[in-house]
Amino acid sequence: VSDVRFRSDVSVELIQSVGTDLTVVQAARISTGRDSVPVDIDDWTKSMSEADGLIRFLMKNRHGTPFEHNLFTFRIEAPIFVWREFMRHRIGFSYNEESGRYKQLEPVFYVPARERNLVQQGKAGAYTFVPGNEAQYGLTQDSLRRVYEEAYTEYEFLLGKGIAKEVARMCLPVAIYSSAYVTCNARSLMSFLSLRTKHEDSKFPSFPQREIEMVAEQMEDYFVSQMPLTAAAFREYGRVSP
Amino acid sequence: VSDVRFRSDVSVELIQSVGTDLTVVQAARISTGRDSVPVDIDDWTKSMSEADGLIRFLMKNRHGTPFEHNLFTFRIEAPIFVWREFMRHRIGFSYNEESGRYKQLEPVFYVPARERNLVQQGKAGAYTFVPGNEAQYGLTQDSLRRVYEEAYTEYEFLLGKGIAKEVARMCLPVAIYSSAYVTCNARSLMSFLSLRTKHEDSKFPSFPQREIEMVAEQMEDYFVSQMPLTAAAFREYGRVSP
Amino acid sequence: VSDVRFRSDVSVELIQSVGTDLTVVQAARISTGRDSVPVDIDDWTKSMSEADGLIRFLMKNRHGTPFEHNLFTFRIEAPIFVWREFMRHRIGFSYNEESGRYKQLEPVFYVPARERNLVQQGKAGAYTFVPGNEAQYGLTQDSLRRVYEEAYTEYEFLLGKGIAKEVARMCLPVAIYSSAYVTCNARSLMSFLSLRTKHEDSKFPSFPQREIEMVAEQMEDYFVSQMPLTAAAFREYGRVSP
Amino acid sequence: VSDVRFRSDVSVELIQSVGTDLTVVQAARISTGRDSVPVDIDDWTKSMSEADGLIRFLMKNRHGTPFEHNLFTFRIEAPIFVWREFMRHRIGFSYNEESGRYKQLEPVFYVPARERNLVQQGKAGAYTFVPGNEAQYGLTQDSLRRVYEEAYTEYEFLLGKGIAKEVARMCLPVAIYSSAYVTCNARSLMSFLSLRTKHEDSKFPSFPQREIEMVAEQMEDYFVSQMPLTAAAFREYGRVSP
Repeated sequence: VSDVRFRSDVSVELIQSVGTDLTVVQAARISTGRDSVPVDIDDWTKSMSEADGLIRFLMKNRHGTPFEHNLFTFRIEAPIFVWREFMRHRIGFSYNEESGRYKQLEPVFYVPARERNLVQQGKAGAYTFVPGNEAQYGLTQDSLRRVYEEAYTEYEFLLGKGIAKEVARMCLPVAIYSSAYVTCNARSLMSFLSLRTKHEDSKFPSFPQREIEMVAEQMEDYFVSQMPLTAAAFREYGRVSP
Repeated sequence: VSDVRFRSDVSVELIQSVGTDLTVVQAARISTGRDSVPVDIDDWTKSMSEADGLIRFLMKNRHGTPFEHNLFTFRIEAPIFVWREFMRHRIGFSYNEESGRYKQLEPVFYVPARERNLVQQGKAGAYTFVPGNEAQYGLTQDSLRRVYEEAYTEYEFLLGKGIAKEVARMCLPVAIYSSAYVTCNARSLMSFLSLRTKHEDSKFPSFPQREIEMVAEQMEDYFVSQMPLTAAAFREYGRVSP
Repeated sequence: VSDVRFRSDVSVELIQSVGTDLTVVQAARISTGRDSVPVDIDDWTKSMSEADGLIRFLMKNRHGTPFEHNLFTFRIEAPIFVWREFMRHRIGFSYNEESGRYKQLEPVFYVPARERNLVQQGKAGAYTFVPGNEAQYGLTQDSLRRVYEEAYTEYEFLLGKGIAKEVARMCLPVAIYSSAYVTCNARSLMSFLSLRTKHEDSKFPSFPQREIEMVAEQMEDYFVSQMPLTAAAFREYGRVSP
Repeated sequence: VSDVRFRSDVSVELIQSVGTDLTVVQAARISTGRDSVPVDIDDWTKSMSEADGLIRFLMKNRHGTPFEHNLFTFRIEAPIFVWREFMRHRIGFSYNEESGRYKQLEPVFYVPARERNLVQQGKAGAYTFVPGNEAQYGLTQDSLRRVYEEAYTEYEFLLGKGIAKEVARMCLPVAIYSSAYVTCNARSLMSFLSLRTKHEDSKFPSFPQREIEMVAEQMEDYFVSQMPLTAAAFREYGRVSP
């Protein structure tokens, strides 16, 4: 019998990326026919300064297409209830995920960390969350872990009896971890970030579940590294995808 | 404490539809500027005969766009593990689903019926399935039902203790039912059917999980009713989406 | 030799539509499991009042998917330079257009009406336009008509010499009219309207070419008729597609 | 007055790309949880051999998503009548194009080369083309060049009179060149190639206009260089996009 493991985090690894702030500029400038790339360092510096202005103009006025000529591929590990929300993003997103039909899923399940708020207030669509007391934290841990362990035990029992993986997995909770490759571009990524993070400076407020926001925050870090001017403009203009 | 219920079926209800075989023809004929619609009954009969020929031509040669000017909206009830596969269909599909963040999910879970094959043979990507013996059927029923009941009990216990719905639901198995509105058009529907049904006359064989195939079969029935010539041509030319 | 004709308008005809404000509400309410449709008239009235509130909430908070379960099919006649802009709309739009490879294009060309502003001021991305004087209007008419007529004459000459339609058409100006079926849903339509109309109350200002705005205005009229609450909420919240 | 120039070619330059055959394999293997990348050279060789088998399996059985985790950005120069066909490709394609609203278009127009077939035979949807005689070639050149020159002359005349670029350009023929950045992935590229090239070994025959096929052929060369196993499998299994 496998040992069930518990995690309270998600992991996001950048597998590959291509395209920078300058690619945004190049694509945008073809509309006026000035899309050549600078070749010496002075031109480059001047170019980055102009780039900043142009990117902010594009973001502010919601000219979105220049932000599509780039790519980020992530390898992400997260519970199934996060993937359920993630895969609602259809446009500019590509997915390949671990399959419960083809392999035995590993006994790794999500439990909230102590700092994860457990109690909701307010109404659907605009919940706020507060920590909950120690008792609530304790019983949540106990309940979840108990179900996870029993479910995984039955899962392995069924597999051992020759039942197909795709049938046996029906008993597994949505907190079990799954892995996927996710590919997107800066435009679809910004759409994801605008909906899956909660920020005071968002022009349109979002109320994501904390666990998908944990994924989004790591994706945003990579975005900031790879395309700093674009990411800054995204934040400046209210976190609205152009 | 709620009574847990078990189902072995899925339900697909057609909420609305628009567009017929003749709409396909009309859209296709605009390329040659002959897209007017017949007004009297003789013209209509002649028109349907020409329609059949044109639709078969479009299907055979994979001219797909004329099949997009129509719509089907379904209300579907299926287990979450089916929805997980369903929502991988991104293009030409719209979804609104029940939310485990906003409401308490109902205690309805999927168990395989006796005729559902339980044992897989062959290798990943091309499994075949066989029934399994009585013992296997019995222990599958027992294991699944036991986990479902325990999980739902803990879920309600957590809700009763004031834990947020989005946290409490983490323990719920992927076999719990969920409902959604799904909108697609004939082209995206054919793409779905080609991948989510198993047919001897498919040019490209598919090996869907039985439960999503049960959804697909009901969708196909509505498709055949609404667009009989298109559906017939789809079948005639190897169930390849144009 | 064919007589060349000139038009200064575009035409938009609604071929079919399905889905209303109530469909938006129904789709949205499935998230809380209250998606049943009212059956008697009192319920209906109450329902429309609730519908208004819910639709405005969805629009304000940019919950977009409930606006996708509906369809509009238009038959549109417009110059090719309008189609060039139109077909940049990729998501939620389906097209079938007249083909210059399969048929002889008709000798119908666009000329600006007297009220169409002819002179641009300001810089790229935020032009404003002013009428131009009588002389400018006159020479524009003369120049455009002269080229159209000469081009169409050469086109027919080449066709008469046995040159393929797809080759002969190379000389035709982008002002020649073409027809297409266009299918979209309320969400993709609102995205189109937000970019292709210029309004003082737009949260994000757009600067469309006047001729595509003429198409957009007619599409918006149909939208207002078919989904009045949705259209009103779109306008109220700054003409931002949800 | 500008000198009008004539071209009979198209140009396709690869600006950037990321992702290889091995990325396809990695993405596909996550379904079974074996997605790690080889680190030493022996493993690499073994890996490429396995990769070939897996890629051929994916292609044959139309498992398309593993082919989406990669990107090609091209800078393409082609006549507008080619762009009109190109931009019908909506899914997995991003575009930024030169704008006739923001800049004066350059006086460069397409004329068929001597080897371009000028005369069509057969019926719509399945034309074949034959060369045409010397007289036909000569008069095509003369007619097209004459219209292009007159149209561009009027265009510059109108610009000189202060008419807005977006109005003056209405007289320009669809053979004028335009430039664009085009980004796609291997899956969307294969869909493009299957429709925009004519090959004897295509399972579903296509009849593209020669000029867009010239673009497609250059794109295919880059594809073969960047992802040789994928490109070979595409050809082996009938040039059907997976």
